[in-house]
Amino acid sequence: MRDLGEFALIDRINAGRTQGPAVRLGPGDDAAVLAAARGNYVVSTDMLIEDRHFRLDWSNPDEIGRKAIAQNAADIYAMGAEPVGYVIGLGVPGDTPVDFVTRLADGFWAEAERAGGSVAGGDIVHSAQLVISVTAFGDPLGDRPVTRSGAQVGGTVAIAGRPGWSAAGFALLSHAHPGVVRRNEDSTGGVVAAAVAAHRAPRPAYDLVRAAMVTGTRPEALTDISDGLLADLGHLAAASGVAVAVESVCLCDPDLELCAAELEADARQWILAGGEDHVFAGVWAAGVAPPPGWTPIGRIEAGRGVTVDGARYRGAGGWEAFSGSESAKSDHSR
Amino acid sequence: MRDLGEFALIDRINAGRTQGPAVRLGPGDDAAVLAAARGNYVVSTDMLIEDRHFRLDWSNPDEIGRKAIAQNAADIYAMGAEPVGYVIGLGVPGDTPVDFVTRLADGFWAEAERAGGSVAGGDIVHSAQLVISVTAFGDPLGDRPVTRSGAQVGGTVAIAGRPGWSAAGFALLSHAHPGVVRRNEDSTGGVVAAAVAAHRAPRPAYDLVRAAMVTGTRPEALTDISDGLLADLGHLAAASGVAVAVESVCLCDPDLELCAAELEADARQWILAGGEDHVFAGVWAAGVAPPPGWTPIGRIEAGRGVTVDGARYRGAGGWEAFSGSESAKSDHSR
Repeated sequence: MRDLGEFALIDRINAGRTQGPAVRLGPGDDAAVLAAARGNYVVSTDMLIEDRHFRLDWSNPDEIGRKAIAQNAADIYAMGAEPVGYVIGLGVPGDTPVDFVTRLADGFWAEAERAGGSVAGGDIVHSAQLVISVTAFGDPLGDRPVTRSGAQVGGTVAIAGRPGWSAAGFALLSHAHPGVVRRNEDSTGGVVAAAVAAHRAPRPAYDLVRAAMVTGTRPEALTDISDGLLADLGHLAAASGVAVAVESVCLCDPDLELCAAELEADARQWILAGGEDHVFAGVWAAGVAPPPGWTPIGRIEAGRGVTVDGARYRGAGGWEAFSGSESAKSDHSR
Repeated sequence: MRDLGEFALIDRINAGRTQGPAVRLGPGDDAAVLAAARGNYVVSTDMLIEDRHFRLDWSNPDEIGRKAIAQNAADIYAMGAEPVGYVIGLGVPGDTPVDFVTRLADGFWAEAERAGGSVAGGDIVHSAQLVISVTAFGDPLGDRPVTRSGAQVGGTVAIAGRPGWSAAGFALLSHAHPGVVRRNEDSTGGVVAAAVAAHRAPRPAYDLVRAAMVTGTRPEALTDISDGLLADLGHLAAASGVAVAVESVCLCDPDLELCAAELEADARQWILAGGEDHVFAGVWAAGVAPPPGWTPIGRIEAGRGVTVDGARYRGAGGWEAFSGSESAKSDHSR
C-alpha cells in the first residue's frame, strides 16, 4: 500500500462504483454534497477498532466492511429513517495489502446495497491498528424521525430480528470447540455456522423497519439493540420516562439453545445481553398491533427501568466501552 | 477513564454545551438530526492519528481538539459552505485521564465556536493509539456549493491566509533549536512562537471565505490547501481542465524567512509545499477583483498543471499519506 500512494488507492477503491441518487457530489473534491429530501437529515457515527470490534483471524475484510456499515445503517433505521450516504475514515497499517483494502471496500458497498445509500467520501491515513470510522446519513421515512423517548404506558414492545446470535457466535469462536467443527453437518452444525456468520457480519432487518414506517402503523418509539437487549430497553425506558416489562417466554430461541448446549452456556444471557445483532425494538401504542414480522416481547408500564418476568433487571448484562463488565457483548481484547 | 464508563464520560463531555440552531436532536439517541436549510448539505471527514498527525509531547489536548475541528471545518468552507454540526469518533487508550478527554472536547467546542456549528454526536471506544475521526456537515453559503472544477482561463487565483507557517512550526519543533528558545524575546522569537502555535492549531481564515460568498463576488472555484499549496492547486487545475501559473513574488513572507534563517532552511519550500495551515485558494473570473483580504498569487491559463514563475511544478513537494515522499507537510512518524 505504501508503494501505491493515497490518491491511487482511493481511485482503486472508487473504481466502478455508482453513487446513489441523494449524492449530488461524490469523492474527489474537498467535501461531498448530499440532498436532504425532507429538509432534515439523520446522522450517526461509529468507530471500529481491530482486536476490539473485530479480529482479522476471525473475519475476512468483506465481513468487517459489511459489519461496519451495518452497525451505522442500523442506527439510521433506528430513527425511522433510511441511509442515503456514508463517509468512511480508514486508518490502516502501512504494510496492509492493497487487496485487503479493496475487499474491505467491497464489504462497505455490499452492505450499503442492502441498507440503502452509497459511500460518498472518506479519508485514508496510516495507523498502528486497523481503524474504521463510519458516519452514515439518512432521510426520515416518515414526517419526522422516531426517537427513543415516545413510548407511552400501555404500549406494546416488539422486536425485529433475533437477538443473541452474534453473542453466540462470539462464544463459539472464542472457545473454538472441537465439537463445533466435527458436527458441522448435523442440525447443530447448521445453527453453529449461522451464529458464527451472524457474529462476523450481522444482517439487521432493515426491511421490517421500512415496512413499519411506510404501512402507517409507525412505532411511537424505536431503537436498535447495540449495547444489549435489556440495556437498550433501559435507555428507551429512561428516555421515555416509563418502565419496560419483558416476558422472557417471547424470547425463547430453540436454535440458540442448541448452540448453548455445545458450550454448556446460557442462551438466555446471550439473548438478554447480546448487542451486536442490531435487532430493532419498537413500541406501538395501546391497541395498535405491531406490523407483520415484529415479535411482541413485552409492554410499557408506569414506573422506571426494565423487568423480566416481573423481576427487576439490575444492569449486569449491560455493556459499556470502558467498564470491563462481564457481558455477552463481544469484546475481543479482554 | 476505565473506571468512569463510556456513558458517564459522554455525559461529562456534553455537560453544559449548547447545540447550534441547525441541530434538531443532539447526543443521546441512536442518531442526531440536523436541518438542511438549503436542501443540500456538505459533508467532509478526516481522521487524525497520534504520532502521525499530532504528538502528545508537542501539543496539549485543547490544541489537538482545535486542530481536528479546524481541518474539517476548512473543508466545509472550501465548498463555499459553513459548518452547522460535527460528529466525532474517538478511540482512546484505556489509561487516558478523563481530564485529557474533557480538554480535548473543550478544544473541539472552542474551534466549533470560531468556525460555526456544534458537536451533535459521537462515539468513544478503546484503542491502542489516540484516534480522532471528525465528520463535519455544512450548509452552502450561496445557492450551490463551489467546487474545484469551475476555474476558467483568464481567472485570478488568490489565497486567504498565509501558507507555510505550520510547516515552519513543524520544522522548528522537530529541531528543538537552542537558539529558538534563547531568542524568544526578540523579533525572531515572536515569529518562531507564532509558527509553533500555527502548527499546533491552525486558524483558517473562515471569515474571508464567508465574506467572499456573501458580498456577491463569489469565486468560480475554491479549495483548501491541505496537501501543499502547489499540490492542491494541481488538483484544482486538473479538476477544471486548466493550468495554474503562480508568481512566487506574491508569496514572499519576510517573517517566515526569519524562521528559516534560524534553521538554515528554505522558507519557499514551506510556502509552496506546506499544507496544514488550511489556507483557502479561490479563482475569480477575468475582470473580477478578489475580495479584500485575499492575496492574488497567479492566474488561470490554458493547458495543464502548475507553473511557478513559468517553471513547471513536478510534484516533488506534493504529499500523499502512503508515499513517504519528502515534503514540508508534517508527518510525525517518519
